[in-house]
Amino acid sequence: MGTTMLTIAETAAWFKERDNFLVLTHRRPDGDTLGSAGALVQGLREAGKTAHALYNPETTPRYARFVEGCWAPDGYISEHIVTVDTASCSLSPLNGEEYFNAVSLCIDHHPSNTHYAEQSCLKVDAASCGEIVYKILMALSDGISAKSAERLYVAVSTDTGCFLFGNTTADTLRVASLLVEAGAPHRQLNKLLFRTKTRSRTIIESMIYSGLEFYFDGAVAISTITRAMMESSNANEDDLDDIASLPGSVEGVIAGITLREMASARDCKVSVRTSQSVDAHAISSHFGGGGHKFASGFTVEKTLAEVKEELLEILGACFAAQNGN
Amino acid sequence: MGTTMLTIAETAAWFKERDNFLVLTHRRPDGDTLGSAGALVQGLREAGKTAHALYNPETTPRYARFVEGCWAPDGYISEHIVTVDTASCSLSPLNGEEYFNAVSLCIDHHPSNTHYAEQSCLKVDAASCGEIVYKILMALSDGISAKSAERLYVAVSTDTGCFLFGNTTADTLRVASLLVEAGAPHRQLNKLLFRTKTRSRTIIESMIYSGLEFYFDGAVAISTITRAMMESSNANEDDLDDIASLPGSVEGVIAGITLREMASARDCKVSVRTSQSVDAHAISSHFGGGGHKFASGFTVEKTLAEVKEELLEILGACFAAQNGN
Repeated sequence: MGTTMLTIAETAAWFKERDNFLVLTHRRPDGDTLGSAGALVQGLREAGKTAHALYNPETTPRYARFVEGCWAPDGYISEHIVTVDTASCSLSPLNGEEYFNAVSLCIDHHPSNTHYAEQSCLKVDAASCGEIVYKILMALSDGISAKSAERLYVAVSTDTGCFLFGNTTADTLRVASLLVEAGAPHRQLNKLLFRTKTRSRTIIESMIYSGLEFYFDGAVAISTITRAMMESSNANEDDLDDIASLPGSVEGVIAGITLREMASARDCKVSVRTSQSVDAHAISSHFGGGGHKFASGFTVEKTLAEVKEELLEILGACFAAQNGN
Repeated sequence: MGTTMLTIAETAAWFKERDNFLVLTHRRPDGDTLGSAGALVQGLREAGKTAHALYNPETTPRYARFVEGCWAPDGYISEHIVTVDTASCSLSPLNGEEYFNAVSLCIDHHPSNTHYAEQSCLKVDAASCGEIVYKILMALSDGISAKSAERLYVAVSTDTGCFLFGNTTADTLRVASLLVEAGAPHRQLNKLLFRTKTRSRTIIESMIYSGLEFYFDGAVAISTITRAMMESSNANEDDLDDIASLPGSVEGVIAGITLREMASARDCKVSVRTSQSVDAHAISSHFGGGGHKFASGFTVEKTLAEVKEELLEILGACFAAQNGN
């Protein structure tokens, strides 16, 4: 079964013709899925529709206020399931699996989208799902409230690291400009989302920087996060936001690897961030993972030392191939 | 004597009617003054004018390529002196003082501009001078080359911390979007300007974070940079760019203090960054320094320990006064 691709205008029309929506966010929800859901629910309600978001139990305090008042009440019977920023059914939130059998509409920007919904509004050039939701809401109502603008600013800015990441486009900046004009309190949001670190975050960053290991003349940097580090810094998942970008931010590094020891010593989560000619997806696919060209990841049942050794072999082969050896 | 205020359109017309320009940047040149000058010279040349920038001997390697080919040749006789991003004559570059007696046009965004030029195109709501230059070039030629766009992106992005700082406006983001559309290689520029840390920088950051001291229930954070730290991290002045913002970025901190040991143990440079109700200028003025409400500094002939003790006394009095004790 395939999905029917909808344009922005068709998606807006689809919403206009229907009512009673339930919006789903993805597992380990980030600013883009929560901000997009919060704005979509808000915008649909302002357009006279009944819309709620399915409670996502993994929502962190950092983002909770951007979906406040959006969670569906007990017993809510929806007619149309809509997902935002969710590439596949496997990314269902912990309590959402039953809904993924019958998704009416998927709004997403991931190239890896598996076309699981009846209809899809898929824009793989968009840096964030928030940009797509912005356009849908504008097509739906020819305007956007300050509340929706705030939530979409959270979506767009967090997925682009405040317009810093390589996915940022001219269109991202244009949408951000329009969101600020529509009343998004970007100064407060930037301070909250990008200019504030918890003490635990500063401690774990300090540990990561001082423990960075460099290989291949500094082209590869490996950062290791052990359970002991997590305990001594008192860091939680929120404190590790975008932590995988740290090793790649060092001058001269082409491949930045973050190894994290999870529940046990043989439960390892790996993030790969690359630039230039190194294919992050190809590296992670060796371990059954995947992702994008410059950002990928995987989990594996090996020790940190074992994974590191294997990764260095793969990276060595990769550099050797590039140098024509 | 006053200055005549020009609109964007009047400024473009002013350029159209004249030729042979010399563009001046300010002392300790940053991305905004250099990017603005580089783009203005480029845009004027593309409009058929003769234009050069006065060589600024303090230009760092980081920004040199954005004014490459712009420096005036020996013996160049200009008819019109234009300054960019320069609030007053006291900000003349080391070799530029003679020119500041006869500035024809000042393009600037600082509220503190002293109106020293015959004509001024002054837009105090602009986050960067680059935004103003962009509008002038568009009014001059109804278009902008990729080379000018690149230079203006440097100007706009560096003055706003890549759209993160509180000065960023909807218009900043709109101009940035148009610059990217015009060909500014924003991905490479962001990587170069904002996402690259030297190894020395990561080491010194790590040392600073692990050595942060907190006082007054975490409202004050003090960072100390000793000469020994500079030596062991092999850090230079470039590596310390914006380092004073680190303590203030920790959650809950209202006053972030950076103490730096300079040439001797009794030569101390202090940076104060505050938010909310704490007046950074007032704190530094106790030591003969000064600055703005939220950012100030001073140098003093005391040891780190002596300065710290005095600062904590002043901050204690400040908090006590605020709590009405």
